[in-house]
Amino acid sequence: MQIHRIRRITQPFSILILALMLSACVQAAHPNLVITQQDIKEMRTAISEPGRFKTAFTAQRELIDVQIKLPIDVPVPKDGGGGYTHERHKKNYQLMYNAGVMYQLTQQADYADYVRDMLLAYAELYPTLDVHPKRKVKAQNPGKLFWQSLNEAMWLVYTIQAYDLIYDALDSSQINDIEQNLLKPVARFLSEGQPSTFNKVHNHGTWATAGVGMAGYVMNEPQWVEVALYDLDKSGKGGFLKQLDILFSPQGYYNEGPYYHRFALLPFVTFARAIENNEPDRAIFQHRDGVLLKAIYAAIDLSYNGLFFPINDAIKSKGTDTIELVHGVAAAYALTTDTSLLDIAAQQNQIVLTGDGLKVARALDSQQATPYHYKSKAFGDGSDGTEGALVVMRSNTDGEQALLFKPASQGLGHGHFDKLTWQYYDHGSEIISDYGAARFLNVEAKYGGRYLPENETYAKQTVAHNTVVVDETSHFNGNVKIANANAPVLDFFDTSPVGTVSGGSIHTAYEGVQLSRTLALVNLAELSRTIAIDVFSVIADDTHQLDLPLHYQGQLIDTSFNITANTSSLTSVGKKNGYQHLWQKGQATPDAGLAKVTWLNDNGRFYTQTTLTGGSETFLFTQIGANDPNFNLRNEHGFIRRVNRTSQHRFVSVLEPHGEYNPSKEYTLNAVSQVSALDYSEQGSLSLIELTIEHKNYLIAINGNTEQQADSSTSFSYKNTQYTLDGRLGVYVRSNH
Amino acid sequence: MQIHRIRRITQPFSILILALMLSACVQAAHPNLVITQQDIKEMRTAISEPGRFKTAFTAQRELIDVQIKLPIDVPVPKDGGGGYTHERHKKNYQLMYNAGVMYQLTQQADYADYVRDMLLAYAELYPTLDVHPKRKVKAQNPGKLFWQSLNEAMWLVYTIQAYDLIYDALDSSQINDIEQNLLKPVARFLSEGQPSTFNKVHNHGTWATAGVGMAGYVMNEPQWVEVALYDLDKSGKGGFLKQLDILFSPQGYYNEGPYYHRFALLPFVTFARAIENNEPDRAIFQHRDGVLLKAIYAAIDLSYNGLFFPINDAIKSKGTDTIELVHGVAAAYALTTDTSLLDIAAQQNQIVLTGDGLKVARALDSQQATPYHYKSKAFGDGSDGTEGALVVMRSNTDGEQALLFKPASQGLGHGHFDKLTWQYYDHGSEIISDYGAARFLNVEAKYGGRYLPENETYAKQTVAHNTVVVDETSHFNGNVKIANANAPVLDFFDTSPVGTVSGGSIHTAYEGVQLSRTLALVNLAELSRTIAIDVFSVIADDTHQLDLPLHYQGQLIDTSFNITANTSSLTSVGKKNGYQHLWQKGQATPDAGLAKVTWLNDNGRFYTQTTLTGGSETFLFTQIGANDPNFNLRNEHGFIRRVNRTSQHRFVSVLEPHGEYNPSKEYTLNAVSQVSALDYSEQGSLSLIELTIEHKNYLIAINGNTEQQADSSTSFSYKNTQYTLDGRLGVYVRSNH
Repeated sequence: MQIHRIRRITQPFSILILALMLSACVQAAHPNLVITQQDIKEMRTAISEPGRFKTAFTAQRELIDVQIKLPIDVPVPKDGGGGYTHERHKKNYQLMYNAGVMYQLTQQADYADYVRDMLLAYAELYPTLDVHPKRKVKAQNPGKLFWQSLNEAMWLVYTIQAYDLIYDALDSSQINDIEQNLLKPVARFLSEGQPSTFNKVHNHGTWATAGVGMAGYVMNEPQWVEVALYDLDKSGKGGFLKQLDILFSPQGYYNEGPYYHRFALLPFVTFARAIENNEPDRAIFQHRDGVLLKAIYAAIDLSYNGLFFPINDAIKSKGTDTIELVHGVAAAYALTTDTSLLDIAAQQNQIVLTGDGLKVARALDSQQATPYHYKSKAFGDGSDGTEGALVVMRSNTDGEQALLFKPASQGLGHGHFDKLTWQYYDHGSEIISDYGAARFLNVEAKYGGRYLPENETYAKQTVAHNTVVVDETSHFNGNVKIANANAPVLDFFDTSPVGTVSGGSIHTAYEGVQLSRTLALVNLAELSRTIAIDVFSVIADDTHQLDLPLHYQGQLIDTSFNITANTSSLTSVGKKNGYQHLWQKGQATPDAGLAKVTWLNDNGRFYTQTTLTGGSETFLFTQIGANDPNFNLRNEHGFIRRVNRTSQHRFVSVLEPHGEYNPSKEYTLNAVSQVSALDYSEQGSLSLIELTIEHKNYLIAINGNTEQQADSSTSFSYKNTQYTLDGRLGVYVRSNH
Repeated sequence: MQIHRIRRITQPFSILILALMLSACVQAAHPNLVITQQDIKEMRTAISEPGRFKTAFTAQRELIDVQIKLPIDVPVPKDGGGGYTHERHKKNYQLMYNAGVMYQLTQQADYADYVRDMLLAYAELYPTLDVHPKRKVKAQNPGKLFWQSLNEAMWLVYTIQAYDLIYDALDSSQINDIEQNLLKPVARFLSEGQPSTFNKVHNHGTWATAGVGMAGYVMNEPQWVEVALYDLDKSGKGGFLKQLDILFSPQGYYNEGPYYHRFALLPFVTFARAIENNEPDRAIFQHRDGVLLKAIYAAIDLSYNGLFFPINDAIKSKGTDTIELVHGVAAAYALTTDTSLLDIAAQQNQIVLTGDGLKVARALDSQQATPYHYKSKAFGDGSDGTEGALVVMRSNTDGEQALLFKPASQGLGHGHFDKLTWQYYDHGSEIISDYGAARFLNVEAKYGGRYLPENETYAKQTVAHNTVVVDETSHFNGNVKIANANAPVLDFFDTSPVGTVSGGSIHTAYEGVQLSRTLALVNLAELSRTIAIDVFSVIADDTHQLDLPLHYQGQLIDTSFNITANTSSLTSVGKKNGYQHLWQKGQATPDAGLAKVTWLNDNGRFYTQTTLTGGSETFLFTQIGANDPNFNLRNEHGFIRRVNRTSQHRFVSVLEPHGEYNPSKEYTLNAVSQVSALDYSEQGSLSLIELTIEHKNYLIAINGNTEQQADSSTSFSYKNTQYTLDGRLGVYVRSNH
């Protein structure tokens, strides 16, 4: 190891590193990780002045004052996740961190004493420990304090900061004891002790490198910073920088989706902040064109009404107010002074007791927040941004609307088989929804709080989403490995004042079947309203059964056709791949023309999906809940448009929010869809949707020519009128006829 | 008629009336109904000062300014409810009233001109009208402008106030035209033209008497005030005072329940305010021990989290912010200066532009509001308060809780067959719920916006509620007439710091069957929590099937017994009386002992109902939605405890809120019920519930002896310990064992 390091140092690249290492060594000051001595100075001033920071400080102090009066408990590790010793050790590192901050702010010895005593207790315990008794057999990542080393790394990330914060209150023998018997052994255990985890380009690796790297700064072991940044043999094949290069796309998108994005963000932001404070010359926040800042913005952009878009195995109540993003927004604000981030910080309504947190608090106190503008954007997926994309469309024409389109890659083991699915939001609510994960987090009675069996049998299956299912089989036949290897293609994306449009396709979800979808969020300026257009094309080598489900939130109000309801008994729509969980409440095959389904959401608005059907589409009305012996699923509603024995089909529909149901004030407005005509045609790669709404006749043109530049101009003629289309989406009012 | 009146005046009683009439005649000032000249003076000052009143004024002025620029439309009546002419005439009277207020406040002629022109248009139209073409055949209450005279009376209530407000801007020929061709004919049509409606002791009669009475004040026709107060022949058998005597119970409870209470309140408050301003000597607000004020308070007290308890045919989104109660609270505050009413006014967040509204606005501006304390109270039902009661229990021990118990009478045609049912609320949410009305108000696609067929077939039926159903038949076999004639009995009610308890019974819901229920909301001070206790006894002459449904809001989390789930197909629980609408999702017959059902509400708390069963109770798990071809019903969950072939049974259970599910912050606390033992015994009329919760052993004693005074003291011995019970409810911690 030692030799290896010297060899590397002789290389030219390493000379720069050596210089940086030396610059790091000069900084023996404590604290100097996320919180610096300069921060502390300003924070001490701030707690004597009224304002958000003082309020946060006072609240935190009250909490910690209760805790430090209780006896210290550093139990011998025994339990797995959720068990007592597991939860206790988690609580301990948070307590040490919070008490450490409190010591620096108040300069009162009892906070430092508390951290010191706990660290000494750990220093006594740690050398006695073997790997954890509840570790997974054969797993390469056991912990000692915890069953898995991920938690051990999290412990180090917090504890090394706590140690840094109270360092000045320790005498040399205590320092020696804590460093030699606890912190250095933990850092060694997490690095050279577990090379495969430490070098892994994965969020578990990020926690480990963050902990070890920060330990290097605090305990003056610059080689630990090196291995944290460049992997154990400093090859750059793993380590923190590689993680930054691989785990985020150039647009800052995290491959597993926003729910895991948020979780992964904390060690990235924490370690990066420590690097920035110790070695600003590394310019870590400029790395890869500022990808870390982009990742923080992406987390915000991938939310609606404060909640993350729940793609993949997401718990739907997670949102932008999670502590990880509170830290992220504080860091991003400190680095950019972008006042629109303060809008998010105000919604988070939580001030972290760091230098960055102080900057946010002061800016909010002096009312510098400006509105955060959510952007329509295609977030390229994959480390080079070419494995499809997650597309967000936004509109503010008529209440805030968002449309999420997912021609994104699988996103590893927590990914869902839902290529080209979509979600739609309006007036603060989910309207067309994704089930998210089937899980009651930490609820023991619900399968130990883990992912429920129904997560596999329903939530991950294609039919649980709003995309085409061929022959009642999920995409990639539900094979994760194949799914991860085959991403969809983002064919085009464009946004302009008339709306946002995107096309995506995939031909690997089913053998011999091409799926392509175009979705658009279109502003009808003359009517001050926005509609969504959905065109889903399936072209197959053979004939198949094609299903396109739509999962909606609300109560069915009306259909433009008669439903044969299954009133006296219910059976499931199918037998497997998620279909076994859907009760079939009714069915209908509307005549050729427009087929409308209207529902009422709890937000008081009506929504009508108008399908242009040739008469071949059967509508199956469904409710989730069949074959669910433990009542694990939410009993939500949907309908499936189905065509049989078809090798080619195009599902065309328009979604239209309308009216208001206000039983409190006793009025109901526009409960009936105002789309009175809909037509679809193509001219080459030009899709033309003609639509009459509120007696106004619109032509909507979408240029899907992927050979063309997005901003090129196209001319075409439609019903004897000449049109020019700039960009991909054109919206034209036709003369009334 | 003339002779008749003279004859009455010779009676001693009428001399007083005559004096009052004369006092009324002196007051020729305008305006002087709800808003007086003195009010106007102060309101004019207020609109020049910043504050809530000015804000409300400015907002209202902006609205009305848009409207008065549009052409006046007084169409020939043609349409029924919801149709154009119906809605237009409704809108017209509101516009006239608002423009009238605006004229008085701003003294700008265009507002008065607008009202004048509209009144003149009506004066031209009205004499040409016969009864409305859409009147109900054979109905005794057709209108001319509207299909029913109820709307015509509402029109008069608003229009007479509008006329009063712009009177000063009219010349004598206009006054003559409007009074002779419009207002006097309308008043006559609604009084002598429809004696049966006018004299009816019913809210339709209240609107009519309010309109006609106020017309009397404004147009100096004191005899109209007389007939409005004492009925057409001034016998006092009908009229406004009789309505006050009969329609409210002594506690201010309105027999049809809070949803209709709120609707009925407006004409009462409006006319009473006009009487008070014109003839304070009548002391109308002191009438019947201040019943009208009690009625306003009762409307507030019969709400939870701003929404009315949804008994009977109630739309669940109606609450204390309805305009009727905004007026009511303003009037009550002006009369009482009770600052706790300002708490409600603040929640209503709406200031009415009246003298009373100004008083509220000023008091809110100067931050005089004090918290409104919701009381535990039994609201006696029936005009003398003896036809049972609607009982509200409140607790603040552990989040605001409310328990509604309904040993109340049927409440006429909109009543539900749910004697002794209950509802339970916690942390702002419905936990054990009532379906309310099956109706989508004004949604044409849903049965014309009227009560749905499922309102009769499900919502009104007993099984849709949380009370015992015998032999799958609703109370009184669903016969409204019999139900109205047979009220339950409120056996006892008591409230104290340890909790609130009430007992009720009925022996007429089923022949030969006695139903009695005791409910208690019990504070366990040592644990800082509150539980609900439910003991339902059935004693019958013969054997029957007894069902006790519980409709809960949330997701089933766990049961302490195995459920046989109906996973592959569903059928309904029964064939009629509401049972045909319940899918049977599973069933179980738990062993003797404690049977627990735990669910999770959207408010993030868990709720466990623990039943003490002897092994004879079968649990049927249900979901609403069977035999619902138009998807009209909400698919809510419940379970029915069922015993078969029994003549005597006691359902005993405890409801326990516990823990917290917080997936956002990633913790779950106390997801498991903490009730570990439950026992029930009786000593005479003393019910003894022994309960172990969080390892604490409680004895709860309920004295159900209706012979005894509520506050008397009782001694008893339980398991070798002596206890003394003061009042009806005792809560004792037993020594641990």
